[in-house]
Amino acid sequence: MARVPDMGGLLGTVRDALRHVPTPALVVDVDALQANIEAMAAQAQQAGIQLRPHAKTHKTVEIAQRQLAAGARGVACATPLEILAMANGGVQDLLLTSPMQDVAKMPTLIVAARSAKLSVVVDHPSQIDLLRQQMPAGERPLTILIDVDVGQRRTGVCDVADSVALARLIKEWPGAGFGGLQGFAGQVQHVHDPVERRSGNAAVAAMLRSHAQALTESGFVVDDITGSGTGTFAFDVAGPFSELQVGSYIFMDADYGRVQDDEGALPFRRTLYVLATVTSVNRAGELTVDAGVKALALNGPLPDVFGGLPQGASYRFAGDEHGVISLPAGAAPPRPGQRVLIGATHCDPTVNLFSRLHAVSAEGAVDEWAIRARY
Amino acid sequence: MARVPDMGGLLGTVRDALRHVPTPALVVDVDALQANIEAMAAQAQQAGIQLRPHAKTHKTVEIAQRQLAAGARGVACATPLEILAMANGGVQDLLLTSPMQDVAKMPTLIVAARSAKLSVVVDHPSQIDLLRQQMPAGERPLTILIDVDVGQRRTGVCDVADSVALARLIKEWPGAGFGGLQGFAGQVQHVHDPVERRSGNAAVAAMLRSHAQALTESGFVVDDITGSGTGTFAFDVAGPFSELQVGSYIFMDADYGRVQDDEGALPFRRTLYVLATVTSVNRAGELTVDAGVKALALNGPLPDVFGGLPQGASYRFAGDEHGVISLPAGAAPPRPGQRVLIGATHCDPTVNLFSRLHAVSAEGAVDEWAIRARY
Repeated sequence: MARVPDMGGLLGTVRDALRHVPTPALVVDVDALQANIEAMAAQAQQAGIQLRPHAKTHKTVEIAQRQLAAGARGVACATPLEILAMANGGVQDLLLTSPMQDVAKMPTLIVAARSAKLSVVVDHPSQIDLLRQQMPAGERPLTILIDVDVGQRRTGVCDVADSVALARLIKEWPGAGFGGLQGFAGQVQHVHDPVERRSGNAAVAAMLRSHAQALTESGFVVDDITGSGTGTFAFDVAGPFSELQVGSYIFMDADYGRVQDDEGALPFRRTLYVLATVTSVNRAGELTVDAGVKALALNGPLPDVFGGLPQGASYRFAGDEHGVISLPAGAAPPRPGQRVLIGATHCDPTVNLFSRLHAVSAEGAVDEWAIRARY
Repeated sequence: MARVPDMGGLLGTVRDALRHVPTPALVVDVDALQANIEAMAAQAQQAGIQLRPHAKTHKTVEIAQRQLAAGARGVACATPLEILAMANGGVQDLLLTSPMQDVAKMPTLIVAARSAKLSVVVDHPSQIDLLRQQMPAGERPLTILIDVDVGQRRTGVCDVADSVALARLIKEWPGAGFGGLQGFAGQVQHVHDPVERRSGNAAVAAMLRSHAQALTESGFVVDDITGSGTGTFAFDVAGPFSELQVGSYIFMDADYGRVQDDEGALPFRRTLYVLATVTSVNRAGELTVDAGVKALALNGPLPDVFGGLPQGASYRFAGDEHGVISLPAGAAPPRPGQRVLIGATHCDPTVNLFSRLHAVSAEGAVDEWAIRARY
C-alpha cells in the first residue's frame, strides 16, 4: 500500500487557501514534497553517489532550487526548452538527457550554455556534427556523454563498438569533453515486484559495465555513468552509476504508489493532487467533477487517492473537462460546488497540463510556481 | 478510408516554411481547414440549422473568426477560460456547454459577459443560485438552457420533471431568460458504423423531444435545442436540434477518420499534424522521433497518417518526449535530423498540448495562432 498522507488535513487547508482559485488546479503538499527531496538526498549522500534530479517531472525552478539546496549537483532535462528554463532560473549545471538532432533547437541550447555548465548525450555521429557546426567557438566546452540503449529501445547506441567510435569523435572536437555514459532503463522503473525489478536492473548494469570497460580499454576516462530512476535508485546506488537522474520521487503517483521495494512501498509520500469541484449530482451513486482528460494524464492507473470523498470512491474519465466518480453504496454524496482532491495519475504528464502549481502547506498556500517549458 | 490529403506537398512546404521552428510543433493545413469550415457551413445552411462550432477543439480566436465568417452564429466553449478568451478575441455570442458550480470561475464569466451575449447551461437548482448570487445586476441578461443527460451519464438532468422545475426557477429570475435545451451525445459521436450510430442517435432525439414537449406543455417556449457533433450532425439536421455544436470536423483525427457515413468517410479532410524530427536511428527497422506523450494525445487510435515515411510505417509511444516508428521490411529509413509529419491522434487534447498552432498553406507558413485558455 502507498503511504498516503492524512488527506483530511490537506483538504481543509486547500479548500480554504485556494478558495479563489478556479478548478481544476494542480496542488502539491509542500511539506511532504520537502520530506521527499530530503529523503532522496540523504540516501544519495549515504551511498556517496551524485544526485541530478530530472526536471521533466516538475518543470519548475522552485523545486529544482529545493533539490539543489538539499545537495543535488545539478538537474537533468528532457528538452532544450527545459534546459533554458532551468538556466534562466539560475541552475548552474544541466544535462540534456535526450539525443538532439534538430538544428532549430540549437539557439535555445546556445543561450543556455552562456549561463550554465551544459552536458548533452549523443547516440549518433550526426548529433556531434550538428553540435560542432552550430555551437559557437568561445562558448564554454560542452560535456558530451554517450547514451546507451539499455533495453528501452528508444534512444542510445546498441553496440559497444559504437560507443568507442563516438568517444573518438568527441575527442577530436576541442570544443567538447567526453563525460561518460548515460543509460536510462525506462522499461524497468515501473515493474512493481522488487525481485523482478532487481533482476531486470541487473541486466542494465551489466550492459553499462561492458560499455564502460570497452571505453576504458580504449583509453577513455569514463567520469560519469548517469541514469537510474525512482523505481531502481535503491539498486543503482550499488553501481555502476555515479549519478542518479531520479524524477518522480518528489510527487509519486498512482503507479509508483504500487511499486514495492524489499520493505514494502517506496520511502516517499504522495504529494501531487488535482483540486476539482463537484459539478453534477443528478445520478444516484455518482457525481461529476470538472477534472478530465485535460487535467489528469491518461497513461497511468486511474486515480486511487481522494480527499473529500467517502472511502471506496472510484473515478472514470468523462471527456476533456469531466470525470465521473462512483460512490460506494449508501455513501453520502458531497454537495454540488464542494471541492475534492484527486491524487495525480502519471505525475510528469499531469504537471504538463497546467501552467501553475499551487504549493500548499499546513499553514496555507505557500506559493504559486510557474510550470515552465511546456510546448 | 479517411480522405487523406496529398501529404507529400504539405510536407515539403512545412519542411521549408517551419525550418526554424523547433519540433515537436503543431501544424494545420490551412487550405484544407478552410474547406472543412465551408463544407460544414454549407450543410448547415442547406438544412436551415444554426451553427455554433465548439471552440474546445481549437482554442484559437483565428479559427473561431473563420467559422463566424462562414456563417456560424457564435461559438460554444467548455470552460469559462475559453469563454473569456473568445470574448477577448471579439466573438459576440458564446455558450458555455458545461454546467458550472465553481464560485471561483464567476469573475471570468462576469468579465466575458460585458462584451458578449452569454448563454450557459444548468442541470441543478444550485447552479442557478450561484449565478443569481454572483452575476451583478446591470449585466445584460443571461440566457440559460437546461442540459439534458441524453445517455452520456456525465452532466444533465435525467427526468423530464427536473427540466420543468429548472425552467420555472429560471423564469423566476428577471436577470435571465430561458433559452431551451442542450443534449450532447458523446457516447454516440464516435460509433464507426453509420447504422449503429443512427440508431443510438434516434434514442437521443427521442429524449430531447420528450423534454421539449413537457416544457411546451408547461408553457415554456423552447427557442433552441443545441448539441450534436461531427459524428451525428448529418442525422441531427433532421431535428430536433436547432443548433449544431460541431467541433472536430475542422481537424478530423485518427478516430474520426474511421467514422463512416452512408457514403463512406465523413466529408472532411484530415488537417492536423505534429511535425517531429528523426532523432535516433540505431535499431534496424525502427527510428525514434521527438514527439511522445507530451505532443500527441493518448486517448485515440495511434497515429495512422504520416508524411515523409514509407507506406506501412507505424508509431508507438516511447515516453514523454519520444515516439518509436517501425518501418516495413526493406524500407529506406529517413536520415537523422529529417522532419516528418504525424497525423494527430485525438484532436482536442492534442491541441491542448501546444501553445501555438502553425497555419501552413501551399504557399508557405501563413500564421502562428495562439492556443488560448490552457490550464
